[in-house]
Amino acid sequence: MKGEPVKYEYQTSLRWTGEKKGILSCEDKPDIMVACPPEFGGHPGIWSPEDIFLASVEICTMTTLLWFTNKENLTLKSYSSEASGTVKMHGGMFQFSSITVKMRIGISSEDDRARVEKMLKKAERACLITNSIQTVVHIESEIVVG
Amino acid sequence: MKGEPVKYEYQTSLRWTGEKKGILSCEDKPDIMVACPPEFGGHPGIWSPEDIFLASVEICTMTTLLWFTNKENLTLKSYSSEASGTVKMHGGMFQFSSITVKMRIGISSEDDRARVEKMLKKAERACLITNSIQTVVHIESEIVVG
Repeated sequence: MKGEPVKYEYQTSLRWTGEKKGILSCEDKPDIMVACPPEFGGHPGIWSPEDIFLASVEICTMTTLLWFTNKENLTLKSYSSEASGTVKMHGGMFQFSSITVKMRIGISSEDDRARVEKMLKKAERACLITNSIQTVVHIESEIVVG
Repeated sequence: MKGEPVKYEYQTSLRWTGEKKGILSCEDKPDIMVACPPEFGGHPGIWSPEDIFLASVEICTMTTLLWFTNKENLTLKSYSSEASGTVKMHGGMFQFSSITVKMRIGISSEDDRARVEKMLKKAERACLITNSIQTVVHIESEIVVG
C-alpha cells in the first residue's frame, strides 16, 4: 500500500508592537524583532522581510549542501557565505529580481574537491527555498584546502 | 531627465558552526542562530530556512499594510497574525506549495472597516515577498473594533 505523500507543515506568528515594528515568534525558538526597512519608511538596525527572505535562500543553500555531505560521509573543514539580493520594480510592483550566494568552503584534502563540487551541483538543484521562489539564484563557490 | 530605475540591495552572511547549524548575520542587526530542521536531519528549537521563509511572507504582509495605513493616516489599534506553510514534493524536489496568513486587525471604530479592507487588498497585491515567490499565498483577515 502506497503511503500518503510526504509533506511538512510550518508555523510562525507575528505581533505588531507599534510604529513599523513587530515581534516574530516560532514555537520554542527565540523571538526576533522585525520591522519595515528604512528605505520603505521603517527602521534601521532591525531585521526586515527583505533581509529575512534573502537569508532563507542563503541558509537553505548551506543546509542542503550539509545534507548531501552528511549523507555521503564527507566532513567539511569550514563553510561561510555572503548573500546579496536586488529588489527592483517589475510591472508596477517591487520584487527580488536576483540573488547571489557566494560561498567559501574549506576541505581537508584536494582529494575531496571533485566530490564537493558534485554535491554543490546537487544542492543547488535541491534547495527547497530556491525551488519555491521566482527570483533567479546565482551560486558562486570557492573551495579551499585547509 | 529620467533617473535610474529605483532599486534596493540587501546583504546577509552566514557562518557554519558545526553539525547542521550556523550563525546568520546582517550589518548592525542581532545575529540569529539557524539550522536545518529536525525533519531533514537537523535540530529542534532553532530557526530553520523554512521558518524564516514563511516568516518573510508574514512580516512583509504586515509591513506592506502598515505602509498603506501610514500613508492614508489611519491608525490601527492592534495587529497580529499566524502564518502556516506546507512543503510538498513537486517534480522530485521539495518546495512550499502553499502559505496562509491569518491576521486579526483591531480598529478604533466601525467607520474604519471599509478603508482597512481596501488597504488590505492593496497590500496583498503589493507585498514584495509574495511577488517574488512561486508559492500561492492565501490571506484571511478578521477585523474587530476595539
